[in-house]
Amino acid sequence: MNKNTEALFAYDGLDRVMHEKARLGMLTSLAAHSKGLNFGELKQLCGLTDGNLSRHLKVLEEAKLIKIEKGYLANRPHTTVILTKNGRQRFLDYLSVLEKVLRDAAQETEIESSSDKNLKPRPA
Amino acid sequence: MNKNTEALFAYDGLDRVMHEKARLGMLTSLAAHSKGLNFGELKQLCGLTDGNLSRHLKVLEEAKLIKIEKGYLANRPHTTVILTKNGRQRFLDYLSVLEKVLRDAAQETEIESSSDKNLKPRPA
Repeated sequence: MNKNTEALFAYDGLDRVMHEKARLGMLTSLAAHSKGLNFGELKQLCGLTDGNLSRHLKVLEEAKLIKIEKGYLANRPHTTVILTKNGRQRFLDYLSVLEKVLRDAAQETEIESSSDKNLKPRPA
Repeated sequence: MNKNTEALFAYDGLDRVMHEKARLGMLTSLAAHSKGLNFGELKQLCGLTDGNLSRHLKVLEEAKLIKIEKGYLANRPHTTVILTKNGRQRFLDYLSVLEKVLRDAAQETEIESSSDKNLKPRPA
């Protein structure tokens, strides 16, 4: 995926739509609830204001990661946010890149002296 | 750290300065090289253009996560980017929140039905 095979730390797979902090929390919440969550639940779980939640929902919907279903529950309007099937797969792919970042960071911090030799293009 | 103890997925510790994709790669590279990296090395490892690298270096320097040392090497000007001691600690703290995101995502995806019961404020 990297444009340059030597760009070991480019992490192109960290899609900015999913990587943004609030949206990462929203996607993690939704991944846990295949039947969806309503606005109040998402707002509470992610610690967001109404305005921020709406804004981020719009971004996720436009990216086709979620769908927003409007219906009725006990005769009252009820809106449910659901992770799409495609969204779930893309989120899992994103998480695998995040795992790689952590592995890289842990590994690089541990084997500092040897990576110094390996990663520098040429000795200074 | 959460404003709301029920905001399980707020991830306040994901400092936006470090969470940004390119800067995350730069910090991971620098964590591996305590003696620092020069511009060319960072550019190559992170797959960044000169302009983007400069812009992100400025953000990291202003946040006191890195320091930029100007000196000479073989009689030529040589600029070295180094992760500060404080920067290293803050990056490790950030990584521990990232680990939590992955644990949460893995756990929530696995135990979907039980978390549905636990996380919703009240049954629908």
